Amino acid sequence: MTKTISVNLGKRSYQIIIGNKITTSLAKHIKKLGLGNDAIIITNPRVKKIAGPQLISALKKSNISCVFQTVPDSEKSKSQGIAFRLIDKISRYARLKQPFIIALGGGVVGDLAGFVASVYKRGIPYIQLPTTLLAQIDSSIGGKVGIDLTCGKNLVGAFYQPRLVFSDISFLQTLPKNEIRCGLAEAIKYGLIKDKALFEYLEKNYQKALGLDENCLEYIINKCVLIKAKIVGQDEKETKSIRTILNFGHTIGHAIEAAGGFKAYSHGQAVGLGMLAAAEISSSLGLLYNPEKTLDRIKNLLRNIGLPVKIKGLNLEKIIKAHTFDKKFIQGRNRFVLMKQIGQTLIKQNIPSGLITSAVRKLV
Amino acid sequence: MTKTISVNLGKRSYQIIIGNKITTSLAKHIKKLGLGNDAIIITNPRVKKIAGPQLISALKKSNISCVFQTVPDSEKSKSQGIAFRLIDKISRYARLKQPFIIALGGGVVGDLAGFVASVYKRGIPYIQLPTTLLAQIDSSIGGKVGIDLTCGKNLVGAFYQPRLVFSDISFLQTLPKNEIRCGLAEAIKYGLIKDKALFEYLEKNYQKALGLDENCLEYIINKCVLIKAKIVGQDEKETKSIRTILNFGHTIGHAIEAAGGFKAYSHGQAVGLGMLAAAEISSSLGLLYNPEKTLDRIKNLLRNIGLPVKIKGLNLEKIIKAHTFDKKFIQGRNRFVLMKQIGQTLIKQNIPSGLITSAVRKLV
Repeated sequence: MTKTISVNLGKRSYQIIIGNKITTSLAKHIKKLGLGNDAIIITNPRVKKIAGPQLISALKKSNISCVFQTVPDSEKSKSQGIAFRLIDKISRYARLKQPFIIALGGGVVGDLAGFVASVYKRGIPYIQLPTTLLAQIDSSIGGKVGIDLTCGKNLVGAFYQPRLVFSDISFLQTLPKNEIRCGLAEAIKYGLIKDKALFEYLEKNYQKALGLDENCLEYIINKCVLIKAKIVGQDEKETKSIRTILNFGHTIGHAIEAAGGFKAYSHGQAVGLGMLAAAEISSSLGLLYNPEKTLDRIKNLLRNIGLPVKIKGLNLEKIIKAHTFDKKFIQGRNRFVLMKQIGQTLIKQNIPSGLITSAVRKLV
Repeated sequence: MTKTISVNLGKRSYQIIIGNKITTSLAKHIKKLGLGNDAIIITNPRVKKIAGPQLISALKKSNISCVFQTVPDSEKSKSQGIAFRLIDKISRYARLKQPFIIALGGGVVGDLAGFVASVYKRGIPYIQLPTTLLAQIDSSIGGKVGIDLTCGKNLVGAFYQPRLVFSDISFLQTLPKNEIRCGLAEAIKYGLIKDKALFEYLEKNYQKALGLDENCLEYIINKCVLIKAKIVGQDEKETKSIRTILNFGHTIGHAIEAAGGFKAYSHGQAVGLGMLAAAEISSSLGLLYNPEKTLDRIKNLLRNIGLPVKIKGLNLEKIIKAHTFDKKFIQGRNRFVLMKQIGQTLIKQNIPSGLITSAVRKLV
């Protein structure tokens, strides 16, 4: 069954369509939105091979032409060099066409393609076709697009909403198991920040999810997307401290990614560790209800899913230094999303650096 | 006397403040807007030398710290390389500060600094302190920011409004005469598209303007800014064919700039020639009222001001090819702003390329 969830942002509103084997109906939506007949599909070679053929056939039937631009399947693709190489190719193509962009892939492709769409000619339309669990429940929604600098993630970007998010769950069947694990890390985040029942569902059903049970995945995706769509509708540009809670686990998470050169830990793995760090900080500040048990539950769920609960092979100081480059580190002051209990957060500024260090040290 | 003109864009509204020797009052406005206490001033070495000292002293009195980042005084500074070099410097500075950006200079600095502000951390505040006539009457207003690709101008950018435009007319007293000429080219544009009386004023008073008569310059700036502010308020993102008319002369103008490698002709000179080309096309299509006399009036005014009315040393084919990379060249179709009479325009698509070529040929 196909579900439609709306992100309500006035003129910039759009729909998130979620369903199993729905790619055949994509062209209909593109036509309805009036995006034109010339798609530039930004993807990586693996996804192109798996999802490319059915996408091409779905678009061709409706006379939508498409060209592929592939980028390496790595966080390193979110770079200035690759973004401008894509822009250059698009500008040549655009002399005779009025293209729109399809981001086909995971978070890297979505962030990169969205950024390219946001700056080329001051913005051309793009749609998100997320093919990973992480992208389907999180990164494809909300218009945060960007690329990385060597000193930190997503430091160059925009708030630029897609015209459509189209999540075909069947793509998840071919996903490497590690990618499912990373997606589940973000699903745990949604549980921890907003939905205790979802967290408990994950505790009970993580094996089904790892086994790619379609109903289970669909349930998780719908739950997470509903939370994200609502939050984005309330605080598109993160100016009201509402959207901020989606960064739970991401402050230290991004630092772990950066300290590992975006190779040692994937985004999902790093966010898992970052959530543990945030929970540890919450506990040391006496903010966390039933801290020992809560920390255990989070750790157990991460461990059961196959996500790391210890940071290995990274320098502690490097992690601490990396977090000072984060977008959430402002004017020498940090800002953390912390936990009261499962399903409830609060935001705190100016956490003493000693506290952060000792929280991270507990994970080393 | 200080004039304040508003750009009305809801939450993104801002004021344009125009006056003589008003820099001393800048800090007051920055404080009122709550932009913080740490300014990064992006400028070029010449402007830094002339305007830097009084700016520093005006800011320091109000405890606003400032650091300068200079870029070469050339269209070539609107490049990927320079933009990312600035972003890198800002990201290092921003670890301990929450900076806002001041664009101090002409159109190049304004476009570049605005672009950097628009993408760094998905957007930080910036203000425009235009120091050239062209920037004071045109480019500092309206939030069109961007950098160039080798194949065309402003192909990468955003609509990102400044928080304030602050035009101190006294800066124009130190401006090279050629820069005044280029500014007057854009002033002629405002006359041609919207304000016959302004065009006639320029015909009568161009010598005063070239002689840097303050009252005359202030009159011209106020007139142009009023037109631009109103148009931007009606059609911020150029989606309603209202803002489009500001591109009068810019389609061929940009092509002349690009064909000359952004060295042979300055923006103002190229726009002057582009307006002549657009008037020629309007005349060939039988759209222009009293074509011979109107063309003569435009040519005479450009000539009197000291702007070129002939294209020299450029390859005709190169100009024609360059215009197909323009943002206004969509899906193989061009779009031109043409003239009915002085003060009145219309937009036409699909102008036959033969007609464009012969219009440009008349200028060679």
